[in-house]
Amino acid sequence: MVLVQAGKLQEFIKSVLLKAGVRNDVAEYVTEGLVQTSLRGVDSHGIRLLPHYINGVKGGRINPNPNYKFKQTSSSTGLLDADHTFGHAAGMEATKRAIELAHEAGTGHIAIYNSTHFGAAAYYALEIAKHDMVGMCFTNTDALVKTYAGKRPFLGNNPICFAAPCKEEEPFCLDMATSIVTFNKIRQLRDEKIPAPAGVGANKDGVETTDPNEITMLLPVGGYKGYGLSMVVEILCGLFTGMPYGPHIPKMFEAPMSAKRFLGQFIIAIKIDCFQDKEIFKERLSAMMKELRNEPALDKGIPVQVAGDPEKMNCEERMRKGIPLKPSEYEAFKKISKEYGIQFN
Amino acid sequence: MVLVQAGKLQEFIKSVLLKAGVRNDVAEYVTEGLVQTSLRGVDSHGIRLLPHYINGVKGGRINPNPNYKFKQTSSSTGLLDADHTFGHAAGMEATKRAIELAHEAGTGHIAIYNSTHFGAAAYYALEIAKHDMVGMCFTNTDALVKTYAGKRPFLGNNPICFAAPCKEEEPFCLDMATSIVTFNKIRQLRDEKIPAPAGVGANKDGVETTDPNEITMLLPVGGYKGYGLSMVVEILCGLFTGMPYGPHIPKMFEAPMSAKRFLGQFIIAIKIDCFQDKEIFKERLSAMMKELRNEPALDKGIPVQVAGDPEKMNCEERMRKGIPLKPSEYEAFKKISKEYGIQFN
Repeated sequence: MVLVQAGKLQEFIKSVLLKAGVRNDVAEYVTEGLVQTSLRGVDSHGIRLLPHYINGVKGGRINPNPNYKFKQTSSSTGLLDADHTFGHAAGMEATKRAIELAHEAGTGHIAIYNSTHFGAAAYYALEIAKHDMVGMCFTNTDALVKTYAGKRPFLGNNPICFAAPCKEEEPFCLDMATSIVTFNKIRQLRDEKIPAPAGVGANKDGVETTDPNEITMLLPVGGYKGYGLSMVVEILCGLFTGMPYGPHIPKMFEAPMSAKRFLGQFIIAIKIDCFQDKEIFKERLSAMMKELRNEPALDKGIPVQVAGDPEKMNCEERMRKGIPLKPSEYEAFKKISKEYGIQFN
Repeated sequence: MVLVQAGKLQEFIKSVLLKAGVRNDVAEYVTEGLVQTSLRGVDSHGIRLLPHYINGVKGGRINPNPNYKFKQTSSSTGLLDADHTFGHAAGMEATKRAIELAHEAGTGHIAIYNSTHFGAAAYYALEIAKHDMVGMCFTNTDALVKTYAGKRPFLGNNPICFAAPCKEEEPFCLDMATSIVTFNKIRQLRDEKIPAPAGVGANKDGVETTDPNEITMLLPVGGYKGYGLSMVVEILCGLFTGMPYGPHIPKMFEAPMSAKRFLGQFIIAIKIDCFQDKEIFKERLSAMMKELRNEPALDKGIPVQVAGDPEKMNCEERMRKGIPLKPSEYEAFKKISKEYGIQFN
């Protein structure tokens, strides 16, 4: 592991993106989204994706210079054509529109179409929470999770993210996929030659297995419940947007880098003051979080936490020590550094 | 089991409620909600609750003649003071307001406070779906689910419900609690002297057990994910409304029937036409549901379904054959029949 300071990574990533032809505002959002996500310890959706994204720009999948088309369809709703740019940029563009609408109409709901991978959904929900609003963000993804009672994947591990501001600490933030574990976790177990826990993955025939090398699809969290939640996300992201769903979505890694993804995303902002005084709301949320953390632990070594606590601790630590890069990631960054003639570490 | 036709039950329940002093509009919603829920096979939240509700009216917990106070706070939001009436009536009152707002503003969000048990959340979401809108409904409930990594219950098995209309069949409807199984299921296993599955419940010390007699709390679905989702529901229902949360909510069965519940609920209606042509949306949702049902099954005896399919099959069957009442439920209804002098079966 090599530790690199967030500021250095930020500078490097932004410069690389600009040199790769990405427009300044787009590059800014992608950089911020990737670095924030790595700081929070969500490595699967952080800076390690940079080489993949650059290939997306080179291959034509990702449009570095989008022509957004926004259409407001009511006082609280709108549609954003992302013109196949980085999901991070489209996502933040939509987030700002949602916040704007919510200031006037109490709530804002933006459906994004013609989009690509938008990284961690928390990036957008946390931005909404800064404005004393509750944020909810969703994206569809390609087929990866076994259909409940089926033998094939149909829906993706479509994430659900919810953030709400609280007093004297960063927002409460739940950002969860609808599979039990991520596919990255399976890849990690393959590398470490460790069996997977029972009930998290299945082989090519849909039969559960603990051999990480045999796992080709994930199982939904809570069986039919996670499967149902994933479908809710698909309805919001695939059907509200007119985009393809589940098995009809070009795959992130397997599809050629020229293939556009046609992803859909859905962003909701709800102004707290429309329901309760925002200061009282934030105080009560903080109080509830503290009360939960003070609950007696079942195992003295494992404290009771609330959603987002591990990410807050990661962020605090990584701000001080730097963001860890695996040797393979470090090398990939070095290669990019050489290719674009931009100094790295 | 005694089978009773839905129409007969409807007439009986409504007459009993009226005789118990419940106002006509309130009685109408309670009756409709209970019978619809039993028709859909969700017996835990159906007609069996009638004796409990009547005790609530007698004890002073439930206000049979509410004075609602509605305050619109923006073009897409509002707050409803339920004045401690039946949650069914307050829920449907709020649902109608949410639909009204959504017609004008694209979406409608109503937070209900001073409410009581509102039965099955699907009752409201399905009503919203009838108006070519997507419906989402939530309620908080008293502490019953073990906190992840903790040893006590703090949050309830707060439900999440989502419904969306589709073509040529009843709406897609996911209505799920955030525990793995319901406490009713545990009670049923106690009666049948069958051990509970592993990992669904814990004893008074928070230790997992399969002995249904020892289970005093449920485990969250998907561990920290279900725990996180339950907290999201609590934020929407307990904090947006100014109501108590988790362990501070008077318990449904254990609290005296004079104790008001102070529950909160949150209802969202989103007009489909603000995002996609509603006919195309409904056609595509139907197509996706059919595609899923045609997925190859892992076990040939268990077909692939989508959320709401079991309820649709129950409804079809119970409309024909009648709603089954257990001997104890049948007797409770007979007792009420005698008490109020209203003919039953």
